[in-house]
Amino acid sequence: MSYAAWIAVDWGNSNLRLWAMGPDGPIAERKAPQGTLALPGPEAYEPALLALAGDLIAPDRKTMVLICGAVGALGGWVEAPYRQLPCVPLGAGEFTSPEVKDPRLDLRILPGLNQARPPAILRGEETQAAGFLVSEPDFDGILCLPGTHTKWMHISAGEVVSFLSFMTGELFRFLADASVLRFTTARAGFDEAAFLDAVSDAISRPERMASGLFPLRAEAVLAGLDPVVARSRLMGLLLGAELAAARMQWLGRDVVVIGGAEMAAAYATALEAQGVAVRRFDGDKAALMGLIEAHRLMA
Amino acid sequence: MSYAAWIAVDWGNSNLRLWAMGPDGPIAERKAPQGTLALPGPEAYEPALLALAGDLIAPDRKTMVLICGAVGALGGWVEAPYRQLPCVPLGAGEFTSPEVKDPRLDLRILPGLNQARPPAILRGEETQAAGFLVSEPDFDGILCLPGTHTKWMHISAGEVVSFLSFMTGELFRFLADASVLRFTTARAGFDEAAFLDAVSDAISRPERMASGLFPLRAEAVLAGLDPVVARSRLMGLLLGAELAAARMQWLGRDVVVIGGAEMAAAYATALEAQGVAVRRFDGDKAALMGLIEAHRLMA
Repeated sequence: MSYAAWIAVDWGNSNLRLWAMGPDGPIAERKAPQGTLALPGPEAYEPALLALAGDLIAPDRKTMVLICGAVGALGGWVEAPYRQLPCVPLGAGEFTSPEVKDPRLDLRILPGLNQARPPAILRGEETQAAGFLVSEPDFDGILCLPGTHTKWMHISAGEVVSFLSFMTGELFRFLADASVLRFTTARAGFDEAAFLDAVSDAISRPERMASGLFPLRAEAVLAGLDPVVARSRLMGLLLGAELAAARMQWLGRDVVVIGGAEMAAAYATALEAQGVAVRRFDGDKAALMGLIEAHRLMA
Repeated sequence: MSYAAWIAVDWGNSNLRLWAMGPDGPIAERKAPQGTLALPGPEAYEPALLALAGDLIAPDRKTMVLICGAVGALGGWVEAPYRQLPCVPLGAGEFTSPEVKDPRLDLRILPGLNQARPPAILRGEETQAAGFLVSEPDFDGILCLPGTHTKWMHISAGEVVSFLSFMTGELFRFLADASVLRFTTARAGFDEAAFLDAVSDAISRPERMASGLFPLRAEAVLAGLDPVVARSRLMGLLLGAELAAARMQWLGRDVVVIGGAEMAAAYATALEAQGVAVRRFDGDKAALMGLIEAHRLMA
């Protein structure tokens, strides 16, 4: 096996995902559930990185490890600065280096973006946006990036103009897997009709996000509500309330949903039902293309 | 110390609270954080009860232990039935007994209430409602019972006519103590102005419950938002969305908030700001009076 020329890392709230880069592109791709929310403190990051990628790093020289994502947030590895909107998604060669013990590591954490009004910050999505813009430099519209904290970014003339953030992913995971609804919600599965009914309900009456939760348990206990229907309706209530709040972002706009997981498909389905001509773009591909672009800007 | 003639127990999602009853009222009162959400399974309930109350139980005879609350729900100790609305809050002498190892225990779990449309179930609040009605038998109005799962009960002619349930308490605890907002939210403290602003905002635009969460973190990172203000605004967003959904319950009605904790005070403050002439009634007192009434009905 050959060592990485450099390593591209997308380290978010929920996952650590990396690519060992060779001269012609990725030579290895790895993923672990050690997202920032799963790590107890700054001292846990270097061991987590080395456990996943140590064998890809040459023993006798420095290897650049270029990282985007929540790893650079308050409560993460080290706090990296934010660049202020409006601006292009990636700065030229800006980064922050945490102290590391392993002398082989040339660690570079990319800055995030911030916006003053309404107060908003993001990390990682700027890199995905940059990756998407490599393939479509003239894009003018909205990037919807579902995740632990979903972002809606308005892109125009190559710049990030504004964005909104929602905790929908984190809320869904708590409600489905840890709250009292865990007894009545399937771990997987998707009922599109139940989902879209709940989306439509919550878009027109966003207070249903509050009033619609406990009835999922009650209907399960009283009438045997199907756990997959409960899961889909729960997801629909949360996404519907988000779509109601983000209406000005998607109404009549060119919307691209960037992501690969179940949530991205759900967002696309919900937006299509509202008459939006949604396009999708793979989230991992966007992150990798963005990190390659960031690496080019380091030169 | 004398032994209990019988034991009154309010065993909810978050707390186990009990009173050892003598001939003239309580002779001891105890509380532990072993609510149903903290217990791993049915086998954990008898040891938790004996750890808190074992020394109050006479060695040489059966002692009646009368229990209300989530302990009788699916996922609790044993599933006790539900009585169907509309009905008086307590049935005459109905109970369910889980199997126990300790021969001194005569365990009686009270039934809950259910409503077919919208699907709704409750346990424990029926006993608090009964306790309140002992002191005010002709009450016609709304009982608001804040807790892990807040209930709004419509009472008329001594009967529970209908109710709504919200997960606001459980959501607040997750968001403030376990979500990404934990880094920016104080563990205690209350800023009434920040709270009421958020309540008012979410009542008029309930989608703010979705869009207002992540900005609490962003404003903390970017502008040093005070952690007590963040906590109060978070509580206000959740309560405001609930009040929007429960508007038909409280608008122009006689509302009594039953509870003792911080959340009950917050509900009363929020309702008063909406022009509701709220009264308050102590939650522990309501539960104890209700359990005494249930004991009387066992005779």
